[in-house]
Order: sequence, then C-alpha cells, then structure tokens
Amino acid sequence: MQTLADIGEDELIRRFVRGLKQDASVIAGPGDDCAVVQGNLEALVLKTDTVVEGVHFTEATPPRLIGRKAMARVISDFAAMAATPRHALITFIAPPHTPVKRALEVYAGLRSMAESFGVNIVGGETSRGSQLILTVSMTGTAPNHQWVSRNQARAGDDLYVTGRLGGSIRGKHLKFHPRMAEAHWLAQNLSVHAMMDISDGLAQDLPRMAAACGLGFEVDLSALPRTPGCTPQQAWGDGEDYELLLAISPKTQAKKLAAWKHAFPKLKLTRIGRLVEKQHAPLAPDGGWQHFRS
Amino acid sequence: MQTLADIGEDELIRRFVRGLKQDASVIAGPGDDCAVVQGNLEALVLKTDTVVEGVHFTEATPPRLIGRKAMARVISDFAAMAATPRHALITFIAPPHTPVKRALEVYAGLRSMAESFGVNIVGGETSRGSQLILTVSMTGTAPNHQWVSRNQARAGDDLYVTGRLGGSIRGKHLKFHPRMAEAHWLAQNLSVHAMMDISDGLAQDLPRMAAACGLGFEVDLSALPRTPGCTPQQAWGDGEDYELLLAISPKTQAKKLAAWKHAFPKLKLTRIGRLVEKQHAPLAPDGGWQHFRS
Repeated sequence: MQTLADIGEDELIRRFVRGLKQDASVIAGPGDDCAVVQGNLEALVLKTDTVVEGVHFTEATPPRLIGRKAMARVISDFAAMAATPRHALITFIAPPHTPVKRALEVYAGLRSMAESFGVNIVGGETSRGSQLILTVSMTGTAPNHQWVSRNQARAGDDLYVTGRLGGSIRGKHLKFHPRMAEAHWLAQNLSVHAMMDISDGLAQDLPRMAAACGLGFEVDLSALPRTPGCTPQQAWGDGEDYELLLAISPKTQAKKLAAWKHAFPKLKLTRIGRLVEKQHAPLAPDGGWQHFRS
Repeated sequence: MQTLADIGEDELIRRFVRGLKQDASVIAGPGDDCAVVQGNLEALVLKTDTVVEGVHFTEATPPRLIGRKAMARVISDFAAMAATPRHALITFIAPPHTPVKRALEVYAGLRSMAESFGVNIVGGETSRGSQLILTVSMTGTAPNHQWVSRNQARAGDDLYVTGRLGGSIRGKHLKFHPRMAEAHWLAQNLSVHAMMDISDGLAQDLPRMAAACGLGFEVDLSALPRTPGCTPQQAWGDGEDYELLLAISPKTQAKKLAAWKHAFPKLKLTRIGRLVEKQHAPLAPDGGWQHFRS
C-alpha cells in the first residue's frame, strides 16, 4: 500500500485539494505562502482546534470520522459564539508510513463536514510526526458584531443545555452535529447572556463559564438531561457532548421557551440550574476532562 | 520540577497568557470559544504553520528558540506575500511530563517574536501528545489588495534571492529574521511578479514557483550567494534559509536595483537565473527538503 513516504508532501497536498469547493470570497486558496480571502466590515472570529491520536481518537477510528470530528469541533466553537465559520486552514501531521488512502479519507471527512457548513478550506500545512494530529484553524464572521461570549452572564441567570449529556465515548464524540442553527436561533430569540459548547464535560466547562463571569453556580444533577443508560454523574463528568450550555435571563418568557420546541422539536432544551454570587455557590461535584492531568 | 501533569490545562493557559500584549483591534482575546477581532475592508490573509520535535528542532533546542522559530516561520510567509500579519492562534501539544518551565519558555519565544512584528496572540489550544508540536495560525491583511503571489511570473523574468543560502542547520534556522521590511520594500519599489520564502530549500521551492507559473527555470549554481563555508550544492539544496525568492521584470531599471543597496546596505540581493518557457528548461539539480519522504 502507498504510504506518505512513497508520494511525498507535494503530491499529498495535490491529492488533498483536488476538486476542493470554494466560494467567491476566496481570492487565493491553497498553493501560495498564505491564503487570501475577501475582508469585510464585520467582526472577524478566529479559532484553532486540534485532535490527537490516542487522545481524541484511536488507531481504530475510521479515518473519515477523524476528519469529521476535527472539523466539527471547530464549527461547534463558532456555534458557541453564534458566529459563522467561513475559511479553514488544515494542519496535517502523520508518520511517513501512514497509508495515503488513510490520509485522503481523513481529509475527505474534513471536506465533507466543511462543505455542509459552508466552510471553505483555503490552505494548510503538512509535516511528519510520531502520531496522527489534525489542527483546524478557522476564521469567520459575526454579522453586526452580534456574537455571544461566555463571560457576560449575571447572578440569577438560568442555566440551560441542549440535547442529552453523557456517554459520548460510545460514538457521539465522532458523529455529533454542531449546534449551529440552534445557537443562532437561541441568540436571536432569547436573552442569551453567555454561551459555550460542552467539550470537556459540564464538570469542567460550567465552572469555566462561571469563573469567566466572576460567579458561582448551582446545578441539580438529577435534572441533567441524560443519554439513555447514563448516570447523572456521567452526564455531569463525561466530555465531548458538544451540546450548548447557555445562561439566559430569568425574565425570559415561557412563550419564548415554548417557541424552541416548535423550531427544534427533536432537541431538548433543559434548565439545569442557575448562576449565583460566588459566596453562595455550593462546592462543585468532581469530574470532566483535563488535558495533561494524570 | 513541576510538569504539565501537575498543573493541568487551565493553569497552563493562564500562565501562557498572563500579561499578553494586545492592541485595540482585539475585541475578545483568549478565554472564549473563539477570539474576535475587528474586521475591515482589506483582503484577509491566512496562514498556518507547524514545528515538530525531531523534525524542525530537537530535544536539545533552547525552548525560547523553538517558540521563536514557530512564530518567525509564519511571519516569513506573510513577508513572502508582502502582507502584514496581525492575529495569531497558538496550538501547543506536549507530553504531560513536560516541565512547566519549558512550556513557558517556548511560549515566551512565541510572544517575543510576535511582539516585535506587531502580532497579537489572541487564543489557541492545548493538548497532550507524544512529542512537542507548535502550530501557529495567523490572520493578517493586504492593504488595498496589494499582495504578491507566487504564480504571476512570466517567461523571461529574472530570479533574485535575498541574503545568503545554505548551512542554516548551523543556527540560522532558529534565529533567522523574517524579511518583512525587505519584502514590502521590494513589492513597492520593483516590478515583483512572484515572490515566496525559501523554507524547504531552493531545490524544492524554485520548482514550486516555476510550476505555479507554468514555467521552467534556469539557475546558475555558481551564482548562488552562499553562506561562508557552504558549497553551491548546499546553497541549492539546504532548507530553512527563510530568504526571499522573487521573479522580477527583466525591464527593471538598474537604478531601482541600486536603490536596494541604499535601503538595505547589509543584505545582498542577487540575480541567480531566470524563468523560461517549460520546454526550454534544463533538468533541475536534485536536493531540498520534503516532508514524509524517506
């Protein structure tokens, strides 16, 4: 079987970008020192994210799903800001003995996910390394500066999550659908004060949101919407759900919340607790995913 | 000694970004799902680049120089387009047993190089992995769409390089200064039809430029400006010089070339050959750096 060592860098890149779809905003795509895209008057939104063999996927993961996941994770971050992803750069690191077919399938997973969200892949970088690593760097826009940060929530705000939590390792971590339409709907229809995606687990991500706002939180573990078969502890601690966590004004009208059910009848939106002044916050239960920690 | 496993991801990032300098174009920096920066009417320029332990540096490389190199390589790509780098995202991958001090020194190298070129670090990503890998993703601008590609040269254009080539492994690959001022001067003062930085060696990069233009090339190996102690073959084949390769109109006036000496008295600008129609091109000598190739 052909390996990367057989075909080399230039030929690999040629095969990666063959037939790549790009829209009119791309002035110069792959092949130059940098990509050039059309600027505009909106705020630019930037994000990079990486998936590493042995951490975010295994040697046995189907390669298309590796690429899919790498792209979907970054798109999920744009959703979490209610921003729109537009242009991606791909860094592809792999051992020289990697079969070319495997590399192309990884890239096909990246491309297909990018295309379904209107993202142009405009360039990237390849290098050899001891394990397969994909980094996706994305730029996008926030029309009229309407984006949602994670640090503007207030004490008393209600905490909600989309979907169900826990047990992502059984497959959802490779096949989740970024909550893009949902995030934009929420930002437009409710008083969303803060939003983020749950990538490292509520146990890690909720304290991060609270800390960013200078607040504490109360969560009712028994109220967490659980993936069937999961315990409340798993819903709290498991990572990679890529659902949205949001803090909304407690004055939000019931009829606005009811409109969610009409817009997204198949996806739950569940109140799980609220943000409180720091000194009133109970000690948080343990769990969640931390890189580097043994 | 404290390792990344001791302090974990959140604390590592806190130490990375403490006191980070950012200018007024940064609306939201590190700490949210994405960074948000001020957009504008210029063309956006995007680039990502990566350095890998065992490929671009060794375990023995001083950590500040690793960070310096990772940032300088991307800035060099912006120079190669006569564009201006503005906002960087850093992906930091390292084994959990990495000393915190080493990680912070790597980041200090990134920061100091970024600051000297007016680049804002606005976010990034960390993960564990089996070797140290830094990826820098940069966005920047090309005022009035005045940027220089590598594919607009014409048959008959003269080929020039800045500086001296070869022997970069002896130290320059870690300490090179991106040719930013030089590139902008060249783009403004000469009829530069194509430009790129020489990262993989002339032997790789010149054929890439010629191919991008649909042309062949003639090079006089004995005319290559050599680092003292280097052979013409080394000047041709060694990678990582990060000098500029440019194709300029053969009608360029001698007095304009003479102005270079006045603007940059310490840096050579040397004619090394010319671009020709493909069928007239001699076979290229061998050499240069290819990722993946055994």
